Amino acid sequence: MLVVMKAQATPEEIRAVCAQIEQLGFRAHPLPGAQRTAIGITGNQGEIDRGNLEELSGVAEVIPVSKPYKLVSRDVKEEDTIIRFAGTDATIGGHNLAVIAGPCSIETREQAFAVAEEVARAGAQFFRGGAYKPRTSPYAFQGLGEEALRIMSEIRERFGLRIVTEAIDHEALELVAEYADVIQIGARNMQNFSLLRAAGRKRKPVLLKRGMSATLEEFLMAAEYIMSEGNYEVILCERGIRTFTDHTRNTLDLSIVPAVQRLSHLPILVDPSHGTGKRNKVLPLARAAVAVGADGLIVEVHNQPDKALSDGAQSIYPEQFAQLMDECSQIAAVLRRSVPRGIHTTEAAGASGPAR
Amino acid sequence: MLVVMKAQATPEEIRAVCAQIEQLGFRAHPLPGAQRTAIGITGNQGEIDRGNLEELSGVAEVIPVSKPYKLVSRDVKEEDTIIRFAGTDATIGGHNLAVIAGPCSIETREQAFAVAEEVARAGAQFFRGGAYKPRTSPYAFQGLGEEALRIMSEIRERFGLRIVTEAIDHEALELVAEYADVIQIGARNMQNFSLLRAAGRKRKPVLLKRGMSATLEEFLMAAEYIMSEGNYEVILCERGIRTFTDHTRNTLDLSIVPAVQRLSHLPILVDPSHGTGKRNKVLPLARAAVAVGADGLIVEVHNQPDKALSDGAQSIYPEQFAQLMDECSQIAAVLRRSVPRGIHTTEAAGASGPAR
Amino acid sequence: MLVVMKAQATPEEIRAVCAQIEQLGFRAHPLPGAQRTAIGITGNQGEIDRGNLEELSGVAEVIPVSKPYKLVSRDVKEEDTIIRFAGTDATIGGHNLAVIAGPCSIETREQAFAVAEEVARAGAQFFRGGAYKPRTSPYAFQGLGEEALRIMSEIRERFGLRIVTEAIDHEALELVAEYADVIQIGARNMQNFSLLRAAGRKRKPVLLKRGMSATLEEFLMAAEYIMSEGNYEVILCERGIRTFTDHTRNTLDLSIVPAVQRLSHLPILVDPSHGTGKRNKVLPLARAAVAVGADGLIVEVHNQPDKALSDGAQSIYPEQFAQLMDECSQIAAVLRRSVPRGIHTTEAAGASGPAR
Amino acid sequence: MLVVMKAQATPEEIRAVCAQIEQLGFRAHPLPGAQRTAIGITGNQGEIDRGNLEELSGVAEVIPVSKPYKLVSRDVKEEDTIIRFAGTDATIGGHNLAVIAGPCSIETREQAFAVAEEVARAGAQFFRGGAYKPRTSPYAFQGLGEEALRIMSEIRERFGLRIVTEAIDHEALELVAEYADVIQIGARNMQNFSLLRAAGRKRKPVLLKRGMSATLEEFLMAAEYIMSEGNYEVILCERGIRTFTDHTRNTLDLSIVPAVQRLSHLPILVDPSHGTGKRNKVLPLARAAVAVGADGLIVEVHNQPDKALSDGAQSIYPEQFAQLMDECSQIAAVLRRSVPRGIHTTEAAGASGPAR
Repeated sequence: MLVVMKAQATPEEIRAVCAQIEQLGFRAHPLPGAQRTAIGITGNQGEIDRGNLEELSGVAEVIPVSKPYKLVSRDVKEEDTIIRFAGTDATIGGHNLAVIAGPCSIETREQAFAVAEEVARAGAQFFRGGAYKPRTSPYAFQGLGEEALRIMSEIRERFGLRIVTEAIDHEALELVAEYADVIQIGARNMQNFSLLRAAGRKRKPVLLKRGMSATLEEFLMAAEYIMSEGNYEVILCERGIRTFTDHTRNTLDLSIVPAVQRLSHLPILVDPSHGTGKRNKVLPLARAAVAVGADGLIVEVHNQPDKALSDGAQSIYPEQFAQLMDECSQIAAVLRRSVPRGIHTTEAAGASGPAR
Repeated sequence: MLVVMKAQATPEEIRAVCAQIEQLGFRAHPLPGAQRTAIGITGNQGEIDRGNLEELSGVAEVIPVSKPYKLVSRDVKEEDTIIRFAGTDATIGGHNLAVIAGPCSIETREQAFAVAEEVARAGAQFFRGGAYKPRTSPYAFQGLGEEALRIMSEIRERFGLRIVTEAIDHEALELVAEYADVIQIGARNMQNFSLLRAAGRKRKPVLLKRGMSATLEEFLMAAEYIMSEGNYEVILCERGIRTFTDHTRNTLDLSIVPAVQRLSHLPILVDPSHGTGKRNKVLPLARAAVAVGADGLIVEVHNQPDKALSDGAQSIYPEQFAQLMDECSQIAAVLRRSVPRGIHTTEAAGASGPAR
Repeated sequence: MLVVMKAQATPEEIRAVCAQIEQLGFRAHPLPGAQRTAIGITGNQGEIDRGNLEELSGVAEVIPVSKPYKLVSRDVKEEDTIIRFAGTDATIGGHNLAVIAGPCSIETREQAFAVAEEVARAGAQFFRGGAYKPRTSPYAFQGLGEEALRIMSEIRERFGLRIVTEAIDHEALELVAEYADVIQIGARNMQNFSLLRAAGRKRKPVLLKRGMSATLEEFLMAAEYIMSEGNYEVILCERGIRTFTDHTRNTLDLSIVPAVQRLSHLPILVDPSHGTGKRNKVLPLARAAVAVGADGLIVEVHNQPDKALSDGAQSIYPEQFAQLMDECSQIAAVLRRSVPRGIHTTEAAGASGPAR
Repeated sequence: MLVVMKAQATPEEIRAVCAQIEQLGFRAHPLPGAQRTAIGITGNQGEIDRGNLEELSGVAEVIPVSKPYKLVSRDVKEEDTIIRFAGTDATIGGHNLAVIAGPCSIETREQAFAVAEEVARAGAQFFRGGAYKPRTSPYAFQGLGEEALRIMSEIRERFGLRIVTEAIDHEALELVAEYADVIQIGARNMQNFSLLRAAGRKRKPVLLKRGMSATLEEFLMAAEYIMSEGNYEVILCERGIRTFTDHTRNTLDLSIVPAVQRLSHLPILVDPSHGTGKRNKVLPLARAAVAVGADGLIVEVHNQPDKALSDGAQSIYPEQFAQLMDECSQIAAVLRRSVPRGIHTTEAAGASGPAR
């Protein structure tokens, strides 16, 4: 159920409607738009009597939302969600494309700084690096944990890059939410609903990767889990689905980008590294992702891929990343979009470091 | 790496080898077999010098295990794993087939008891019922939680049925491990490695469902995660994979049953309810599962499927369940296996309730 | 559109309705049932005026058929289709299960006779053998062609076995229709509509294999192509679909058996050889196919599988086939069905040879 | 097996080697390259004694080819295959991208000319239109057949556009090969080996669409079938694969474009119309196809998509096609490639009509 307020509705009227909704035992989610505010209602398992709400002051209409997702929907919020990072000019969503780059895993301080320097030089605004790794084998390298988070904090202070890293469980989530700028939820956890809810209670943006066999609806419902807890800054990410093919590790489903953009106001990125699993396919698919209209990329870059402790075969070299930035900028221009180069931080933010 | 002890090796020799392995910084997993004991070594990321181990007293040979899974493998333990339930004659694995039946969700005490009475009468030894439900929508019924666990405890005391229920996260795991006899890990959590490890530290059997797009190797590796923490009582369960087909909710992949049985000593059950998603396909596929050689079934039964709060369309009626028991017993006999009818508890166990 | 005749309608009335339908420019397909005759109408791309037909003598009702398939549907013909083989007691469809066995390819007269003798001894009623092989590589063995057909004719005369063999194109179809008792259309040709139509103009039963990525509807529509040309003796066959799994060559989708049986009156067999691609999985899946309710099996048997020119790895040994017959008979009995052993031919039929 | 000739080998030496190969009972396929000629050998089921060939005059080396495909491979021909159309400047393969556009089916002369005029105006060089339609239902519109071919011949004469149309069977192949410039083999016929061989005996280029569930290797092997008969002008085309997703009709697998280009010298196009099945996804995916490096596009355009007799929902409007041409040209420029606008024909060719 969705309450659409009149364009001239006052903040008091909006608050009154929210209060009424809460009093009925539901949860109200005010979603301000450029023209008008809509209020999503969640928590109802059955029917709500819409008559009660339609008569409240300032209400334009009450719309039953038939789709199972609500808060992720463009019905609720028509304008694209743009996520901003305090103290910087970086954004995810909207006109500018976001590029997130870095190694699969943080292995050592030296390796992390070497890669960070390269990706910063090529113009990335975001740095990714695994602190906690979901590995198929219990005997494989599992990540450096909090030490990796500390290294990435230093990278933010040194290069200004905003930090994106995965939280594989509740324990890691606490630390990731403290150190990082964007909390990543991996493909294997896309339907770990307990973790999604917990991420929804954090006040950091969440980058949610599509599960390997998730339909569009399941993907949006997973985002809905996060939003239903009050965290509206969700970034979707296509990273390849599992099919019968064997020439790539996964099949990158680029058609989901326009499909998501029709239904949802949330930004959607593409991960051509996991999406292909092969270094020589990363650049072509990165270009294709920009051409299809993705809101950005997340790419694995390693200075010595052959020595990487995980996923080396899909990490590109720094010089390939620089080429990727150039080509993607040119293709973005065809779509009248931009790939900003370099992040600009205000002095205060630069000095204060992460807004923990 | 696997250390195979001589047939006549003494307990002291076995302990000494384990101590030596632990001293090298690895973890030793002694696995007694009918003929001889093998000791699995985990925790090594690189090579171990096998020479050191081969010279220890009582050691027959040291085998490098090339497959990524170790503890789940028949190389490590040749005999089928049989899981026993103290105070009862129920088993999972081996000659007898295990039948687990009950409603998708515990909705009320009345509903749960009504279904339990029916499945007990038809001869099931295990009762299943959801206390915590992983639902695609955050707005759908999420289960009664601990209240449901308490109801199922009462069912165990009343009918003797052993209880199987899903733990969807760490918090639920603590309670499920306390109340239930078997901890279920659902398909969506098959690669929630943090939860797998935690389940591996419990001392209750774990029923691990195959992920919707998991390969055989990934499935066995998930079991390996549990076993690597020291819990060797893992029960595998096929519940359908995601394919292009649309005549069933999932495609039940019965061929994985003989495939698992070749590679692993762990029991493997089949869930024809989730595997098809349609009531009228449950019986045919249950029969097929027994015919293919599965070690048991987990089936949804509801006394009023049309009013079920979740998955009603795939729940069978009690009378269908009775028919299923009959048909499956007859088919099991063709394979020279049995479907025991009814659980027999010793007085002490009956009185003491769950061995918490 | 379907015209249902009254129970007491006379042959003249039926003929008159058919004539009227043909006069309207459509095609009439009279389908006699136990209770009444239905007449399927095909060839209409738009609407037909049902009023005209409803007023004809002997007509009970006119039913618009919304599903895209008509002739395959139980709406048109409620009773199971049973295909009979003149001069023998063999059937496909109905109470008795049909077992078709033989080598992947006819390689030599000696090999074919050796295998035929074994499968006849174990009780098979049908012999299969590839004369024309659809091979992924143009450089692989493509079959002996007409020579193989002649060898199989001799096998029919010698052992009474009815012959099933694949027609890969129009040219092969002419010869197969002449020599064989059942024309097989392979999975790769399931949507070779031109070949389907041509098979529909033959007067021999057609065994239609499900395409590797065919939905249930596409599968039934392919059968509809054959039937729309007037050949109503179509036998469906599940042989595995393509999925992401890698432990078997294909994933045998046994759930399609009850799904087909609900919608269609046509018999459906299962091919556990192609469905798994692995010898050690053929028996378990054959048992499962019978348990799920399949109307029969088609199985590859080879006396020397390791020397087979094609698909040796999935061919079972004669002694395994004998075991399969025993186990499947016992499982069929649980479903109150039978697996007849051996074919009984009348002398005349035995003498008349191939071109009936 | 592949015989690589010395750079300075004479035509006589090449002919002598071919003769020797044929005399051994194999088939020789001379493949001239910029630097040197290679000779592919096919028809061998076992080993060939390479010693005999290595000693012939002009031979540089003899390479056993382990991959199952030979003639499609870059091992045999390193340079990209460029297909030329006599009497025009149009090409498929190499620097310039080929754009093939037109309606799904030829419905009437008026419709076909209207669409042709639009696509010619926007700069397409090739016109596509279905004369024979492979339809899932036997009762759906099956195409106008030869009449459609005649209409397309007129379109070629009027607008200069080269004609691409599908041959669904042997009979259609004869006519298509006579009237059209490119013979299309559809996805459903990708493993209709008999048709592939027949197309291989024609002297017109063949556009081969990837089957819905074909692996890369199966796709290349299908092309190998055509080439093994002596027709080396094969154009590959990705058109979407069947997966579990439901937001598009198929999943366009763009990663196969760079995968094919690494292994094969053949051009590869992308069909975003069938690949998505939705009009609003055609442009984004067409841009992505160019960005990933495809050698061209095949797109459905209809002047009145809502009235199309087939596939209207995926046909774009002429104005969308003009936008597609503009955007794709700009993206091609980023990859230093071109999308030529308009076809230039020599007078003679214009006059000579269909049967070149």
